[in-house]
Amino acid sequence: METFVKYFGEKPKLKNPVLIEGLPGFGQVGRLVAEHLVKELKGKKFAELYSPHFPPQVMINPGGTVDMITNNFFAITGKGKRDIIIVVGEAQAATITGQYEICTKILDVAQEFKVSDVITIGGYATGKLLKEPKVYGAGTSPALIKEFENYNVSFKSGEGEFRGGIVGASGLLVGLSQLRGMNAVCLMGETPGHPLLIDAKAAEAVIRVLSKHLKIEIQLGELDKRAKELEKFRVGLERMMRKMVKKEEETAEEGEKEEEEKTKYIG
Amino acid sequence: METFVKYFGEKPKLKNPVLIEGLPGFGQVGRLVAEHLVKELKGKKFAELYSPHFPPQVMINPGGTVDMITNNFFAITGKGKRDIIIVVGEAQAATITGQYEICTKILDVAQEFKVSDVITIGGYATGKLLKEPKVYGAGTSPALIKEFENYNVSFKSGEGEFRGGIVGASGLLVGLSQLRGMNAVCLMGETPGHPLLIDAKAAEAVIRVLSKHLKIEIQLGELDKRAKELEKFRVGLERMMRKMVKKEEETAEEGEKEEEEKTKYIG
Amino acid sequence: METFVKYFGEKPKLKNPVLIEGLPGFGQVGRLVAEHLVKELKGKKFAELYSPHFPPQVMINPGGTVDMITNNFFAITGKGKRDIIIVVGEAQAATITGQYEICTKILDVAQEFKVSDVITIGGYATGKLLKEPKVYGAGTSPALIKEFENYNVSFKSGEGEFRGGIVGASGLLVGLSQLRGMNAVCLMGETPGHPLLIDAKAAEAVIRVLSKHLKIEIQLGELDKRAKELEKFRVGLERMMRKMVKKEEETAEEGEKEEEEKTKYIG
Amino acid sequence: METFVKYFGEKPKLKNPVLIEGLPGFGQVGRLVAEHLVKELKGKKFAELYSPHFPPQVMINPGGTVDMITNNFFAITGKGKRDIIIVVGEAQAATITGQYEICTKILDVAQEFKVSDVITIGGYATGKLLKEPKVYGAGTSPALIKEFENYNVSFKSGEGEFRGGIVGASGLLVGLSQLRGMNAVCLMGETPGHPLLIDAKAAEAVIRVLSKHLKIEIQLGELDKRAKELEKFRVGLERMMRKMVKKEEETAEEGEKEEEEKTKYIG
Repeated sequence: METFVKYFGEKPKLKNPVLIEGLPGFGQVGRLVAEHLVKELKGKKFAELYSPHFPPQVMINPGGTVDMITNNFFAITGKGKRDIIIVVGEAQAATITGQYEICTKILDVAQEFKVSDVITIGGYATGKLLKEPKVYGAGTSPALIKEFENYNVSFKSGEGEFRGGIVGASGLLVGLSQLRGMNAVCLMGETPGHPLLIDAKAAEAVIRVLSKHLKIEIQLGELDKRAKELEKFRVGLERMMRKMVKKEEETAEEGEKEEEEKTKYIG
Repeated sequence: METFVKYFGEKPKLKNPVLIEGLPGFGQVGRLVAEHLVKELKGKKFAELYSPHFPPQVMINPGGTVDMITNNFFAITGKGKRDIIIVVGEAQAATITGQYEICTKILDVAQEFKVSDVITIGGYATGKLLKEPKVYGAGTSPALIKEFENYNVSFKSGEGEFRGGIVGASGLLVGLSQLRGMNAVCLMGETPGHPLLIDAKAAEAVIRVLSKHLKIEIQLGELDKRAKELEKFRVGLERMMRKMVKKEEETAEEGEKEEEEKTKYIG
Repeated sequence: METFVKYFGEKPKLKNPVLIEGLPGFGQVGRLVAEHLVKELKGKKFAELYSPHFPPQVMINPGGTVDMITNNFFAITGKGKRDIIIVVGEAQAATITGQYEICTKILDVAQEFKVSDVITIGGYATGKLLKEPKVYGAGTSPALIKEFENYNVSFKSGEGEFRGGIVGASGLLVGLSQLRGMNAVCLMGETPGHPLLIDAKAAEAVIRVLSKHLKIEIQLGELDKRAKELEKFRVGLERMMRKMVKKEEETAEEGEKEEEEKTKYIG
Repeated sequence: METFVKYFGEKPKLKNPVLIEGLPGFGQVGRLVAEHLVKELKGKKFAELYSPHFPPQVMINPGGTVDMITNNFFAITGKGKRDIIIVVGEAQAATITGQYEICTKILDVAQEFKVSDVITIGGYATGKLLKEPKVYGAGTSPALIKEFENYNVSFKSGEGEFRGGIVGASGLLVGLSQLRGMNAVCLMGETPGHPLLIDAKAAEAVIRVLSKHLKIEIQLGELDKRAKELEKFRVGLERMMRKMVKKEEETAEEGEKEEEEKTKYIG
């Protein structure tokens, strides 16, 4: 099986679209922002990306149906001067080469719709929990950086301060966009960096920036509710896992030894 | 070497077959159910699936012959209105992409025999050991779900309850079947989740459901014996490994450091 | 880069050759046996197998030249009724799929020389250190098993005793030979299972069996010396690594955290 | 996405060039030497190598722009009898097969420019911190070794002394060069082996050797400054990570269990 994109019916006609990516990561900021935009701006799903590099599992819906792990493309039309493609999903690639492969496919779709600007959303782990989280940015062109600085996005680092790296899709999509001559920026909401915290405050800060850039009003009322739903999902997952842990701990250790030895038992 | 399927002689002629998969997993429920069906219903092996994604080892039989790790296809004919293809084997893929690749090949075989319904069997780890384990389910179509609910399979989750995911072949086969327009359901026998326990009780509960769905009577007398055989196999494997552990523990640690350092020693 | 075999000059003409594989593993039994045969029976290297699945490093020779990690093919001619191909090297594949890929390539070479019999050598870790280690076996055909039982190789397991598996090339080569219709047997010298012990006693036991099967006399005088050389090599490697460990331990831990976090820092 | 090389404009015309590689590794000796040569000898970047085997992240520059992880090719012309190609970058491959793939591509570029000699730079971890670190070497031809021995590079090992291996690009490039009939040598500055120490002293020792071999004078005044910059970069990276560690430690552990169980939860 190769990574592939499955379209639903006819491809949408999009007006000079911008692509916005929000996948799971620090504080779930990217995912929360993307899901909020889809719901508030009535996004229509038009394609799904499948890959053998995603975690090899399916998710069970409350009704008992199952979903494969995918990255999904939603089209938002008629809200502003430009249409929007949102990329959101349950997971990022679980392999190193898969990260590159999936981001490449996402940009193939972007180019098919003549996307010139790519915006990726993430969390910037500063270890601080703030009432007014800042939005940090990184981008491919001084012009782009200049525009977002007008919205109080912080791109420059202080004297000798280290800005670090952006791991995963939010980073690679920006880097790979540059290779294709597309403009790209990564917006990162300041978040403590706790992997289980769903950071609605950080998401809100990013949405305010997006609202200015897109010149579209975006309601924030439902944001907390969506954060809680996402949290319930994650906490549920965690509880399920914990239950297993309790029963398995001791045997798990044996299991690991088994594994370890198996691989050493080269006859 | 690529993943490939090797047929024995002529391909069987099968009447509107259903595919049932049972591979190693929680409580060995899937594997135990599948092996029991093959023996009780006189399944004939007609193909083997080989893959470079299986653990790189062979198993030694009591007689001294060896078997590669494979997933095996058995045909059960003339027992009910429909014939059955059973997929059973010693292991699942040991790599992430391999899980997808092997499940894809299994469904290629299914489609070659015009399989319209896929049933995967697994264990659902609830952490509880019960006299009367329930059977949980997840499926691709409301119709399918409705039918199995009549056999007391529990698909719906309680208010706000989280159903989680199905990792591995039992989950991916259901998800990938949906992509090919096949009906699919995963039946999971409630099991404590101890990886070394062979859960005959959970297997029995699943077999009762299958018996109703297939409208075939399936004897259960041998089930405990088969569970014990499987357990002996696993306990034997474990004992062999433990023996090595004892002798190797201290050096194993050195060994790991060696590894660790080797990979760090980038000249 | 793909796995490939590089021949030196003209391919040797071999008389009904048998292939004998001995690669690093438990007690270094296989490797020690293979290297001893090459030296005692004046094997000539005629090909090298290169693969991107080997550990990504080179070895430095005492003189300062370097060798890539390879599996090497030696031809032994004119010693008995049949010629011999020895496969020996510094490592086995470091990836799961690589184990299958390299064994497949080794058998491609075997078939090019019309090899009908494959013998793989390994260690069988019983946890016991014995003056008279036994030789355990596993094979593909009852006929083959019968012949080696005459040389006191133990193939059958006791009542309910578990024989386990053979991980790595010694196992896969036997399993894959069977798929190609070649006869194959794995001979395993009983060894404590200490990964750093070079077990000359176990190697000697295997060589005695090979000598009978090949009807070639094989001197054992140099065996201990070769075991010590191999040990010096391994102990040297270990000492080098230990030195690094001391200097790196604390920072290594930081290093790991770094790694861990890096992969978690998905912006 | 495949590993590929992107050229900037026209390919440079180079006079019998030698290729010098310096990538991250022990003591950052190779990287520091290569960056120093590029700056002192006014190297011009003419190509970048991109690969899906590099860590899946981008680096943020102080100005807010981002760079993908690449290996970069610089041309140094008109400094000596021969021109120079420098290969330097932020990372080595993060996968085993990637190490081979990237080194193969680097040598493809070398051959395009008819490179006959390849010099790789690394650190040789002896665990000792010395005022006058030695330079150790390993090479492909006695002639090459002889020349560098005249510059006091130590190739031979003492009686029974073990020289060990060279892991990563510095080693593989030498080994793979040999396969293509190119001369190659790896120069390793003696360094304690602390992965976070940027060893300017070891780099200086290697540069003195290169200066003699290339018959080009190379100023050393800026070396310490460059080492400190590189250190700031690394320490910054480390501090950023540590901040996250503090906030995440406890949850990280949960996270791991989650992972562990997830992969065990094969329904």
